[in-house]
Amino acid sequence: MDIKQSAALAKNASIKLSNCDSDLKNKALLEISKGLIARKEEILKANKEDLENGVKENLSDPILKRLKFDENKIEDVISGIESLINLPDPVGKTLAATELDEGLELYKISCPIGVIGVIFESRPDALVQISTLCLKSGNAALLKGGREAVNTNRILFDVIRTAAEAVGLPEGWLHLIETRDDVNEMLKMDKYIDLIIPRGSNEFVQYIMNNSKIPVMGHADGICHCYVDEAADLDMAVNIVVDSKTQYVSVCNATETLLVNEKIAADFLPKLKIELDKKNVELVGCEKTQNIIAVAAASEEDWKTEYLDYKLSIEVVDNLKAAIDHINNYSSGHTEAIITENSENAEEFMNLVDSANVFLNCSTRFSDGFRYGFGAEVGVSTSKLHARGPVGLDGLLIYKYKLFGKGHIVADYASKKKTFKHKKLI
Amino acid sequence: MDIKQSAALAKNASIKLSNCDSDLKNKALLEISKGLIARKEEILKANKEDLENGVKENLSDPILKRLKFDENKIEDVISGIESLINLPDPVGKTLAATELDEGLELYKISCPIGVIGVIFESRPDALVQISTLCLKSGNAALLKGGREAVNTNRILFDVIRTAAEAVGLPEGWLHLIETRDDVNEMLKMDKYIDLIIPRGSNEFVQYIMNNSKIPVMGHADGICHCYVDEAADLDMAVNIVVDSKTQYVSVCNATETLLVNEKIAADFLPKLKIELDKKNVELVGCEKTQNIIAVAAASEEDWKTEYLDYKLSIEVVDNLKAAIDHINNYSSGHTEAIITENSENAEEFMNLVDSANVFLNCSTRFSDGFRYGFGAEVGVSTSKLHARGPVGLDGLLIYKYKLFGKGHIVADYASKKKTFKHKKLI
Repeated sequence: MDIKQSAALAKNASIKLSNCDSDLKNKALLEISKGLIARKEEILKANKEDLENGVKENLSDPILKRLKFDENKIEDVISGIESLINLPDPVGKTLAATELDEGLELYKISCPIGVIGVIFESRPDALVQISTLCLKSGNAALLKGGREAVNTNRILFDVIRTAAEAVGLPEGWLHLIETRDDVNEMLKMDKYIDLIIPRGSNEFVQYIMNNSKIPVMGHADGICHCYVDEAADLDMAVNIVVDSKTQYVSVCNATETLLVNEKIAADFLPKLKIELDKKNVELVGCEKTQNIIAVAAASEEDWKTEYLDYKLSIEVVDNLKAAIDHINNYSSGHTEAIITENSENAEEFMNLVDSANVFLNCSTRFSDGFRYGFGAEVGVSTSKLHARGPVGLDGLLIYKYKLFGKGHIVADYASKKKTFKHKKLI
Repeated sequence: MDIKQSAALAKNASIKLSNCDSDLKNKALLEISKGLIARKEEILKANKEDLENGVKENLSDPILKRLKFDENKIEDVISGIESLINLPDPVGKTLAATELDEGLELYKISCPIGVIGVIFESRPDALVQISTLCLKSGNAALLKGGREAVNTNRILFDVIRTAAEAVGLPEGWLHLIETRDDVNEMLKMDKYIDLIIPRGSNEFVQYIMNNSKIPVMGHADGICHCYVDEAADLDMAVNIVVDSKTQYVSVCNATETLLVNEKIAADFLPKLKIELDKKNVELVGCEKTQNIIAVAAASEEDWKTEYLDYKLSIEVVDNLKAAIDHINNYSSGHTEAIITENSENAEEFMNLVDSANVFLNCSTRFSDGFRYGFGAEVGVSTSKLHARGPVGLDGLLIYKYKLFGKGHIVADYASKKKTFKHKKLI
């Protein structure tokens, strides 16, 4: 089947899927988790193959780590599916209701977006999470996973599709895409596909945006910042910066740049350096930083770089405003934290920093669908439209307006024979 | 000032505007309405000039009608501003709150999108509506109005900007763009502009989507349908179809195609034709239609055409399913109505038709921000992301997540020293 056929089939299935009731969707989710258990050996074997190929191809250790899909990972995705089953159905909720006039009632009802194309990286668990989130939210999906995970993805896709269609989900609601050519074809299918969610580097997301008319919800770089204010508790600040930078370096909510108020820089930076040295974090800094601790010079490029590694850039700033300006200029709009005991400074920072997630006195690593309690996530959106920050079920929904009349026509209101009441019903 | 400077200035102003309090924004709105009264003569004179130029350029009557901005229109926009002042501030609302763990609280807070570029057609009242909606929702804006309305738009823009900045709104929150070259420049400003709202033909909206990385909320063609079911009250159906087609032909929610169930077509079509003939509506139809009433043949092209005129295409369909399929294939996703006394058929139609507005027993002309009770509208979105259907204040907002901690780090949760509570606070 070519991509056009897949996309047309998905569109067709999406209309049916949008009207499947909660019981059927939950039954499908249960069947998927059973399938994952029943076909565990197949899955592990396929993943072993991918890992062996990865080693042959000299993939880096972090990539191999992400690629690994063992019994623990299978248990994790199954427990994820269980929590998804327990979440209320997000489709068909009445978001607003107004009596426009006697007998003329308007309802705003949540509904799936339709067909979603998701392009994600090497982790096979992402395939399970994304497709089950799409299922629960009533969306059809075309999935493109990492090339390294091709064998694992094929099996997982087959388990999910087979299980879901076996209990009665519409045929063609889920498709697996394997080549770059097919991705390029998919980007042209604006007649059938309603949303593209690309997860990857900034350049990759920009490429997608440049090459498609389909709306894009970008999940791009996280150039995240910690700002240590003059009124910070310095021990707390050390703790938070160390966690934000080193708890898991290869993820988008790890901190890449530290901003330090110059009033406390001389006290703070040496303390911090001791702890970061223990974790072998490479430091680069502005001139003022270099006057306090022995670090290499940071270049303009450093402020724009997502290291995803044991490396941190440091700038000493004059004041809170300079920190906010630096962030609004260089940040990717993902997550920024202020460490301060001054609530006015905290408020100013959190109001004026134009990022999806703005934090007080905690690690940037908290911005994540699981930690936020969403059950699961499609990713963390750095777009400013539709859904921002960690995207769970709610981000995969839109609404339609249903208006129930009894023969009402507009001419009666234009001629002032009738007037609108606009009485809120809920 | 070139567009890049305007856009950068708007970005800067948007951060400040997003933090202006309700009183200040309402004061600015009041000042704008005062300015419109104080400079009425200037406005009327400029509009007279535009109308005279329009006549010289042989603009059509409907365009000249839309271009006209007289004392009544000024009163209308002022009463619109008054209702906007009375609406609650949509910014800063807590949309959700969760205690992630003791002392670690997550809040989802509504905030403006940022900088919005709006491209709209000849009506000068649209400039006032859109800029005041942006102001109330805390968004900076770049506006491009119709070329025909250039003199009227200049005065209106000057009134609005001057009044708003006089009471303390940030300089540069509003910009007027006048040339196509400037629009093309604006489309490149993805660093500064967060959303483009183009209102116009399908081709125009497609052009914008093809030429910008900025997210687009399309306000395109309305190829709206009425479906007269076998269980329809035929007199009601005649009334609704006549209103949907003729109450105002040149608007996007006017019906362009009528679908009639074949079981009642022979009864219904002759009745309908009598009434549409009185309004001089040109009819084209499928073969089955032609067997019942004397009309010209409809071509495939007719099902895809937004006439915006006294013309209606008619197809006789086998059943409800065929009607839904026709709509999901040809509709622009704007507004569709079913006329029926059968509630199951109504439900099936309203659930399976994939349009922003799905109506039972009332005119398609009701899909409009004013009639829906939104106070005002930016337009009617035919996109499926972010905002769908009539877009009022809510459609100009997004949210940010604010997380308040007390030194919390992720390492404590990764090591299972602490566990999340995820207790809903609201």
